[in-house]
Amino acid sequence: MATGGLSLSNLTVAIIEKTQGRLRATVRGSPDLCVTSVAPLATAAVTDLAFLANPRYRSDAQSSQAGAIVLTLQEADALEARPNGALVVVDAPYAWFALATQLLHPTPPAAAGIDSGAVIGSGARIDPTASVGAGAVVGADAVVGPGAIIGAGAHLGARSVLSAGSRLYPRAVVLDDCTLGARCIVHSGAVIGADGFGFAPLDGQWIKIPQLGRVVIGDDVEIGANTTIDRGTMGDTVVESGVKMDNQIQIGHNCFVGANTVIAGCVGVAGSARIGRNCMIGGAAGIAGHLTIADGCVIGPATVVSGSIATPGHYTGFFPIMKNREWEKAAAIVRQLEDLRRRIRELEAAGRGDAKQ
Amino acid sequence: MATGGLSLSNLTVAIIEKTQGRLRATVRGSPDLCVTSVAPLATAAVTDLAFLANPRYRSDAQSSQAGAIVLTLQEADALEARPNGALVVVDAPYAWFALATQLLHPTPPAAAGIDSGAVIGSGARIDPTASVGAGAVVGADAVVGPGAIIGAGAHLGARSVLSAGSRLYPRAVVLDDCTLGARCIVHSGAVIGADGFGFAPLDGQWIKIPQLGRVVIGDDVEIGANTTIDRGTMGDTVVESGVKMDNQIQIGHNCFVGANTVIAGCVGVAGSARIGRNCMIGGAAGIAGHLTIADGCVIGPATVVSGSIATPGHYTGFFPIMKNREWEKAAAIVRQLEDLRRRIRELEAAGRGDAKQ
Amino acid sequence: MATGGLSLSNLTVAIIEKTQGRLRATVRGSPDLCVTSVAPLATAAVTDLAFLANPRYRSDAQSSQAGAIVLTLQEADALEARPNGALVVVDAPYAWFALATQLLHPTPPAAAGIDSGAVIGSGARIDPTASVGAGAVVGADAVVGPGAIIGAGAHLGARSVLSAGSRLYPRAVVLDDCTLGARCIVHSGAVIGADGFGFAPLDGQWIKIPQLGRVVIGDDVEIGANTTIDRGTMGDTVVESGVKMDNQIQIGHNCFVGANTVIAGCVGVAGSARIGRNCMIGGAAGIAGHLTIADGCVIGPATVVSGSIATPGHYTGFFPIMKNREWEKAAAIVRQLEDLRRRIRELEAAGRGDAKQ
Repeated sequence: MATGGLSLSNLTVAIIEKTQGRLRATVRGSPDLCVTSVAPLATAAVTDLAFLANPRYRSDAQSSQAGAIVLTLQEADALEARPNGALVVVDAPYAWFALATQLLHPTPPAAAGIDSGAVIGSGARIDPTASVGAGAVVGADAVVGPGAIIGAGAHLGARSVLSAGSRLYPRAVVLDDCTLGARCIVHSGAVIGADGFGFAPLDGQWIKIPQLGRVVIGDDVEIGANTTIDRGTMGDTVVESGVKMDNQIQIGHNCFVGANTVIAGCVGVAGSARIGRNCMIGGAAGIAGHLTIADGCVIGPATVVSGSIATPGHYTGFFPIMKNREWEKAAAIVRQLEDLRRRIRELEAAGRGDAKQ
Repeated sequence: MATGGLSLSNLTVAIIEKTQGRLRATVRGSPDLCVTSVAPLATAAVTDLAFLANPRYRSDAQSSQAGAIVLTLQEADALEARPNGALVVVDAPYAWFALATQLLHPTPPAAAGIDSGAVIGSGARIDPTASVGAGAVVGADAVVGPGAIIGAGAHLGARSVLSAGSRLYPRAVVLDDCTLGARCIVHSGAVIGADGFGFAPLDGQWIKIPQLGRVVIGDDVEIGANTTIDRGTMGDTVVESGVKMDNQIQIGHNCFVGANTVIAGCVGVAGSARIGRNCMIGGAAGIAGHLTIADGCVIGPATVVSGSIATPGHYTGFFPIMKNREWEKAAAIVRQLEDLRRRIRELEAAGRGDAKQ
Repeated sequence: MATGGLSLSNLTVAIIEKTQGRLRATVRGSPDLCVTSVAPLATAAVTDLAFLANPRYRSDAQSSQAGAIVLTLQEADALEARPNGALVVVDAPYAWFALATQLLHPTPPAAAGIDSGAVIGSGARIDPTASVGAGAVVGADAVVGPGAIIGAGAHLGARSVLSAGSRLYPRAVVLDDCTLGARCIVHSGAVIGADGFGFAPLDGQWIKIPQLGRVVIGDDVEIGANTTIDRGTMGDTVVESGVKMDNQIQIGHNCFVGANTVIAGCVGVAGSARIGRNCMIGGAAGIAGHLTIADGCVIGPATVVSGSIATPGHYTGFFPIMKNREWEKAAAIVRQLEDLRRRIRELEAAGRGDAKQ
């Protein structure tokens, strides 16, 4: 949904308010200039707002038709005068642009109320300003907060809590006894609170360990499509506030994900892993169970974290891509690395006049 | 569903028509021979059609009880006479067999019409020959083309288009403003059009960037179970005609997948990647964002594409499997490769009489 | 759900019965001591049962407030007297603990009967003791056994069989013509019986090969959330009894998974792979198609099984994690391994007085 457009001065004021003063922008050009939407620099029209965050795109900015461009002071000073467009100068242009986009394209409000085709369990408490879609299920004694939205066919289990302003997209599933804080977004096909994977061996067979814990999720958490977060075995699986998870992620039972950590798509996290705050986990990384990752770590894509990481830093580990024929040779040599190392030792020993080992 | 059976001559004619003359077969033996189903060479009965594409299975063909075998001229000539069975000789036996299977086992038609338990939004236009199952949702102003099938509990969002002959399997989800061309198949649990993963950092927190684009899918695209394709941020995510995607794939926002590319299961593609036409991507490969893969590339399984690929070819990169104990040693040496290389340089320098570096 | 509590003597007797005598425990302390729930050693209260399986946690056991601790004879003898708590001594404490947890927290029974919002196809046979939830679909001629539970919004396709005591969690999908044995658990979002990924090339395009087989699943199989198991092309995809699969797993068409094998999350198995019995497959492993893995194999996490494994053992293969800067160097050297090997050979030849090759 688009608004009818907002002037740059209205946008700057609204964003100062929204960020409680953290994001103050200066307009170069007419503050009355009105933008109706957003676009990339290259394709923006005079009614669009665009942004320049990466100096690589400076020439795109120079030639852009955008009505206004958000950028840093440094970039603004580097740009030649733009006769037909304004500049919005701010310390964090990407964040300012994101907030401006939210203001220009507010999420369409869902109609408050419970669709006649929804199924509501006994004792469920649904705020009158909340919206429950067709075919959605709200379990017994569940709680749905003010302004929360449960999409068509979504499922909120018994005794679970969906707090104010949170949203389950169509066919998202939250099972029993789970709690989501305020302003969370759960995308379609995500499953929160399925049983953790716990079995005890007995004579070659596997005895199921009942999974008695919950999933407890903080505020402002986003959970991608088809991501799964299992309930704890005895304690809870915990996702702190501000965490953003992409699609197709698996979080095992009793994991902890610290505040404001972002996890890219297809990551798997085994049970009881403890991921710190403000981490960035690359796509398709795999994190073993029962380990700890320090706050502020960056994990590369497709990297296996096989042990605890105590020191913040950037860690990576994946095999480099090569032409298939070269890879076949390299892979064969990887299998012989021990032999290569031995031969180097022997050469060194021979050079020193040692007897060969 | 099986038909009552078809004669080889009927099959050959039907396939010539279906392929507009591209696939002409010759029958050795009786063209009136009737087959009712298909089976592998080893287990086929006299009423079955089988195929031989890989010379490795030539002896299976020789001893097969199949009523008819589809094969190339070369294989047909290599085979000794089969007293009790026919041969169907064709340039592309696997494709002919696939088409014959389609003819022998046509998809059962779904009953046209809208199930009384479906939920139809205002302004939705549903062709009278389309089928909408129980509990399915068709959003406001959505369009469902002739012969399209929306399975039980599937979701087609507002303003989205499901074109002629396309099918959403039970509980597949297409969110708002997405378009699918003709004859597409979307399997259960797939989610098309969830928000892309876009956030701008501000003081250690993450500001959501509204995802305003769409997903636009061509004709004859197949999308596997629980695969996710995110909508674009500003522009669209585009999947061209003829693309085939397996299960559990993740396609990020603003990706482009070129025509007739096939992607095996569990592949992750980060945002704004551009995959060319006629590529083959192996299972569990990972493709980084903002890169380009040339037309006609083959990417091996579990391979990380971390940069653009400009030249068609076969590329691979995964660590070879080893006995765990040997892997432990090899992995330790991989961590010391820089040291090994330095030692080789020193040995070379010593051999040349250089001073050690 | 918790019972009112059970005495240790009641638990020991019940577990002897349940395991048909395989698991006999001895109580040290009062057999009349009653426990109401389970907890980890560190946080257990006097009404809790805890367990000690790993000697590493011996000191936790010593200081635990747990009413009773399950452990081996060896651990029991190593522990100092616990004035206020009992010990349950048994050969397999973890299995005993799992069974005790099941007895203390039995799965709440679902109300028998068919919800008025469920959709039942013609000819479906649903046992009167089974439970079918709101919005669930049971296809034509499907069979639902005694005590089986079909959760809200779950889907059981036409002619499919859900045997006695099996459970589909909310929004799990079993498509047509599939069979699940007794006491199976299918978690939310799992999709069983989608089409396998089969296409034949023709002039750069892909012809769909109809997937005519089924998925056939044994008894006591657990299938995780958003896991997908494709139907066979001509034969069936088979999962034997006792198999446990975690979340987000992909099993391709015509695979075979042998009895009591456990597969961790995010594993991908390509078509026609044959995994033996009693295997353990680590998280995010990838198994290529058309190969065989022997019974009793352990595959490490993130390991690509690219060929058959004939000998039981522990196999691994993933790139070790490193600081990103070191990884960049190591990855560059991996690409030059052939060159390094050549240089070692030259040094060896020079040392032997050979001419350089």
